[in-house]
Amino acid sequence: MSLRVKFFEINLETRGENSIIDITQKVEEKIEASGTKNGLVNIFVPGSTGAVTTIEYEPGLLKDLPAALERIAPSNIYYAHEETWHDGNGKSHVKASIIGPSLTIPIKDGKLILGTWQQVVFLELDVRPRKRSLIVTILGD
Amino acid sequence: MSLRVKFFEINLETRGENSIIDITQKVEEKIEASGTKNGLVNIFVPGSTGAVTTIEYEPGLLKDLPAALERIAPSNIYYAHEETWHDGNGKSHVKASIIGPSLTIPIKDGKLILGTWQQVVFLELDVRPRKRSLIVTILGD
Amino acid sequence: MSLRVKFFEINLETRGENSIIDITQKVEEKIEASGTKNGLVNIFVPGSTGAVTTIEYEPGLLKDLPAALERIAPSNIYYAHEETWHDGNGKSHVKASIIGPSLTIPIKDGKLILGTWQQVVFLELDVRPRKRSLIVTILGD
Repeated sequence: MSLRVKFFEINLETRGENSIIDITQKVEEKIEASGTKNGLVNIFVPGSTGAVTTIEYEPGLLKDLPAALERIAPSNIYYAHEETWHDGNGKSHVKASIIGPSLTIPIKDGKLILGTWQQVVFLELDVRPRKRSLIVTILGD
Repeated sequence: MSLRVKFFEINLETRGENSIIDITQKVEEKIEASGTKNGLVNIFVPGSTGAVTTIEYEPGLLKDLPAALERIAPSNIYYAHEETWHDGNGKSHVKASIIGPSLTIPIKDGKLILGTWQQVVFLELDVRPRKRSLIVTILGD
Repeated sequence: MSLRVKFFEINLETRGENSIIDITQKVEEKIEASGTKNGLVNIFVPGSTGAVTTIEYEPGLLKDLPAALERIAPSNIYYAHEETWHDGNGKSHVKASIIGPSLTIPIKDGKLILGTWQQVVFLELDVRPRKRSLIVTILGD
């Protein structure tokens, strides 16, 4: 069978800074809807204050990961970004650029390949609630 | 020629925390086995305490990279993850989420495209030795 | 239409440490040259002291991101990498491995999908000016 590309969107309303949203099931639903058996799925965040990665989705790490990001981009320091926009989210941009807006995962036999304790997550790094439309690109047969 | 997707596994036994394993040759062997001339290879870590990236594989950086990750997720602080599992690897999860579980590299003329001093590495971030099965997905012609 | 893979190069001359170069338009030009309507584009950095990510390309963040990376890999500490090469760029390697050499973005209707304030950037993390050839791989129809 020849490979095809299909696009889907995952729409989210976030609660603002450090809300970490488990999108695993939504990605799996898109794969099923696409009818794809084998290939790759890419999840992409259009926007510069959100990121996508994987994590074991349990309450402790939902505190520990933001705490680590605070060490990289503390809340209480000056950001030159403030000169341009005065919107208080310089730290959000910095964290998003370091984690990155793109994640690619294999699809095998119609299933997302993940570890037992591994979930796909969107990280809202902006300082206020946001509406987000993630792009799910499925490339496979 | 039309594009196809092929899967391979790279099986590793790690020595535990901060073991960094050069998997470049194993990835190249999978590309050769696949017969792929041009496309992309994705290396994915199923699991939430390992990560994949590239580095110049020389003994100094094998110390310097873990030292930098220790600044992001120190060993001697409290992790809320401990409340859930008591397994002492909160820091491992945090580091893995920041570096990420997925890496995509071009294949051209049957060869992995890399810089002269650049190797593909698996980072064992967990605190104990682990068996790992990385998924190598090759999409090309 | 069946999917195809096409390669392009983006050649850059960097000004050295912490020069952040907006490559969005160059990536868009390659997509247009490829004639690809729908698929994925991967940008890959051959080399272990550069990285690729997205950011809102405005002067403030071009200072804030390097400042955050300096917290992860400070300039004024010892790097074991120095024992091997004595080239003063241990911090550059560490930053590059953490951010990563690879970025994959969807192409839809012939256009790169990005947020309004989101640009694709190459990060020169090495301590001296460098010539860079990034590999742009386009996989689509």
